[in-house]
Amino acid sequence: MDKVFEISLLLDFYGQLLTDRQYEIMDLHYNNDFTLTEIAEQLGISRQGVYDNEKRGRALLNEYESKLGLLSKFCEQKEKAEKVQKYLEKLNLAELSPHNKAIIEQVMQEIRELANNI
Amino acid sequence: MDKVFEISLLLDFYGQLLTDRQYEIMDLHYNNDFTLTEIAEQLGISRQGVYDNEKRGRALLNEYESKLGLLSKFCEQKEKAEKVQKYLEKLNLAELSPHNKAIIEQVMQEIRELANNI
Repeated sequence: MDKVFEISLLLDFYGQLLTDRQYEIMDLHYNNDFTLTEIAEQLGISRQGVYDNEKRGRALLNEYESKLGLLSKFCEQKEKAEKVQKYLEKLNLAELSPHNKAIIEQVMQEIRELANNI
Repeated sequence: MDKVFEISLLLDFYGQLLTDRQYEIMDLHYNNDFTLTEIAEQLGISRQGVYDNEKRGRALLNEYESKLGLLSKFCEQKEKAEKVQKYLEKLNLAELSPHNKAIIEQVMQEIRELANNI
């Protein structure tokens, strides 16, 4: 997984356990593509202050994931749902009765939600 | 959801963020049905000490869930997977071609794993 994307997901999962300042800085950097210098200007604090908060926040997010592993658990669920989507795509829809087709359509919609819910 | 079962799930999700002592006491109480008095005897500490640790641990677990909501997120996923299971049970299997039947069997197995993975 791309490192920036991974931190952005970790922030989504555990961000509420950071201080407001840590969260704000990481959100600007990882979700809004601000550089650390831009963040320092935006918040009116030193670049070193931004750097320290970002480093500490990132360490905390990694620590939470290494203790709880909930992002990894979610990713496994998502992969299973995507696997099911792939199976369903192999169905020969023309061979389905109207009754079965209606059910499969509902299943496909639920599975799509499951796979995208991360 | 039954309160004891809910705390047991919260312990499963966030237990690694508690102190070893808090975790040990809550694990004995909620997963192994020990009374607080039995835990005090087992660990050789006062009943008040057990009580305080259990109370503090429970407050922390509830605080983590109220900040992160990951147990609730997982329960939603589980409910979606169970909904899909119910849809699949309504399929008329006799009407499926061998090709489609083989796919549906694989889908059912994956969905079962998704629904039970909590």
